[in-house]
Amino acid sequence: MSETLKLPEASKKRMVQLLQILKAWPQKKITSAQINEITGWKDSLIRHDFWLLGKNLNGVSNGYSVENLIFVLEELICDSSTKNCCIVGLGRLGAALLDQSFFESSGFEIKVGFDSNLYRVEILRTSFPLYPADDMPWVIKQEKIEYAILSVQNKDAQAMTDRLVKTGIKGIVNLTQRLVKTPASVKVENLSIINALNLLARP
Amino acid sequence: MSETLKLPEASKKRMVQLLQILKAWPQKKITSAQINEITGWKDSLIRHDFWLLGKNLNGVSNGYSVENLIFVLEELICDSSTKNCCIVGLGRLGAALLDQSFFESSGFEIKVGFDSNLYRVEILRTSFPLYPADDMPWVIKQEKIEYAILSVQNKDAQAMTDRLVKTGIKGIVNLTQRLVKTPASVKVENLSIINALNLLARP
Repeated sequence: MSETLKLPEASKKRMVQLLQILKAWPQKKITSAQINEITGWKDSLIRHDFWLLGKNLNGVSNGYSVENLIFVLEELICDSSTKNCCIVGLGRLGAALLDQSFFESSGFEIKVGFDSNLYRVEILRTSFPLYPADDMPWVIKQEKIEYAILSVQNKDAQAMTDRLVKTGIKGIVNLTQRLVKTPASVKVENLSIINALNLLARP
Repeated sequence: MSETLKLPEASKKRMVQLLQILKAWPQKKITSAQINEITGWKDSLIRHDFWLLGKNLNGVSNGYSVENLIFVLEELICDSSTKNCCIVGLGRLGAALLDQSFFESSGFEIKVGFDSNLYRVEILRTSFPLYPADDMPWVIKQEKIEYAILSVQNKDAQAMTDRLVKTGIKGIVNLTQRLVKTPASVKVENLSIINALNLLARP
C-alpha cells in the first residue's frame, strides 16, 4: 500500500462512490462502459483515476474484476480498523443518527452523543451513552473518537466546531447550513439538506 | 433579474453558502476580506462571482451592504415562492426530517412522507400526511411537490428514484450511499453521511 498516495479530491470522491456501486454490483466483472452508464463518468476519466491509484488494474476485454477493485479501493479508501464517531447536537436529526444499524458495515461506529441541553441528555432513550457538551474533551479522548457529526442549530455551528477542534478531532461532517472554519488539520464535509435543496431549486 | 443567467456550479454553491453566512451576519456591512476569513475563498474569486451575478455589487471601502447582497442573492438563488417537498423512506433518518421546524424559513415546505412499508405509514405519529409509496404519482401531482428527499435503504435507491422520476419531480436530495441515475431534467444532490465520513477518513 502506497502510504504517500494523495489522490485529487475529485478522484477520491469518485472512488468512494464507485466502491459503493461495486459493493452492490451483482456480477463478477464490471466494464468501464458499465461504470459510465451508472455514473456518467467518461471512460478516459475512469482509466485515469485507476492509473492514479497506481495499482495493476488493467481491465481485460470483459471488464475489471469487481472483487479485486473492491479490495484495492477498500485498502486505499477505508482503513481496515473501525473509526469511532460521535454525534454533536441531539435534536431530531442528530438523535435519529444514534442508531448503529444506520452505520452497519460502514467502517464507522457511533460511540456517544453530546448536547448542550442537559435535559435532552437525560431524557433521550438510546443505546449509546450521552454526555453534556462540556464533557467532550475527556469523553472524546477516552473513547478514542476521531470524527464528529455536527447537527447542532445553525447559530451554534462555529462555536461547537471550535470546541471540537480543541479536543483533537480529525474531521467533521457538518449537517448545519453554516460553513464552519477549522484549521487545515481538521477536515470538514458540508452536508446541509437545505443548501442542497437550494442548489436543486436554483433556476 | 436576468432570466438567462446560468452560474457555473461552483459559483452557485459558493453563493448558496454565502447567503447563509449573510443571514447570520451581525453587521450592516461585510468586506471581501471578512468573507475570505470565514470561507477561505480568495478575494479575486469572490469578486468574480459577484461579477457573474451581473449586478451592481461594487463594494465601497467599508464593504458590501449585507442587506443588498441578501436581496440580490435571494432573488437569484431562491424563488420567492415556497417549494413543496416530500420525504421518501421513513426509517429513523427520514422520519426525523418530518419536522417543519427543521425547514423553517428555508423556502421549502415538507408536505408529505412516503414509505413502501404500509405498517410504518400507519403507525408513525406526525403532523404530515403519510402515504404508501404506491400513491406517489397522484399525491405528488395533487400536492404540487417539486423536490424529494430520498432516505430509503441503499438497495432501494435506484428503484425508488425511477418511480420518483416518473412522477415528474424536479430534483432529489439523495441521502443514500448509492449514486442514482436520473434523466438530465431531474437534478440530484448526493448527501451521504457515510460517504462523507469515508472522505474525511481517507489518508
